[in-house]
Amino acid sequence: MTNNDDDIEDVPAPSSDGWPERYFAVIFTNQRTLANDDMYSLTSDRMVELAQQQPGFLGVESVRGEDGIGITVSYWRDRAAIRNWRVNVEHLAAQQMGRQEFYSWYHLRVAEVVTHRSFDAGDMVSGV
Amino acid sequence: MTNNDDDIEDVPAPSSDGWPERYFAVIFTNQRTLANDDMYSLTSDRMVELAQQQPGFLGVESVRGEDGIGITVSYWRDRAAIRNWRVNVEHLAAQQMGRQEFYSWYHLRVAEVVTHRSFDAGDMVSGV
Repeated sequence: MTNNDDDIEDVPAPSSDGWPERYFAVIFTNQRTLANDDMYSLTSDRMVELAQQQPGFLGVESVRGEDGIGITVSYWRDRAAIRNWRVNVEHLAAQQMGRQEFYSWYHLRVAEVVTHRSFDAGDMVSGV
Repeated sequence: MTNNDDDIEDVPAPSSDGWPERYFAVIFTNQRTLANDDMYSLTSDRMVELAQQQPGFLGVESVRGEDGIGITVSYWRDRAAIRNWRVNVEHLAAQQMGRQEFYSWYHLRVAEVVTHRSFDAGDMVSGV
């Protein structure tokens, strides 16, 4: 390490879990309607399951707050993998339901990850 | 519009609010400890206020779930703006508190946004 933050790894990506040096993030920010909670949960869980089976899928992080605003960030090896996932037939049906039922608005951004740093308090304690 | 999703705008960025065609996202995924809720709220609010005053700041989206996992995505005009914000003196102190008190782990990724699509159900109703 050459900086002062000796508890931070400043690397392009966590090589330990086999991610490539450069990869892409899909940043999905959205506002849930109040409608169809059960159908939403079913659909959302299925989409995560299905995404994980797609070629080039790396990982996903997803949070929803009490106000119904959610951010889901999924990570992909390249833009071709994102395009393939976008036109998956079952995913297309879910996207249509999303616009008709689940979301009052959303933003969907594709971005190329250029740096990645991580911190784990457990590493500090254990000295790993 | 040339695709079938006539309710979706497929544009590099929302030009209406003056964002540049290409810009950068800082994706901050984190797990809150159970400690120091009041100090965390004060610090977090102050950092959003301070970030908004930085040159090159475009916007921020932030969500925390009941399990204490949070995702904050901030948007910046270029990487120089991100570097300047990273070394802001008050922000550096907050980062140190973050590692010592607020977060059990975090991931911090910088990514270049290459496409941006948005949806607003209100636009469908009004026909805008």
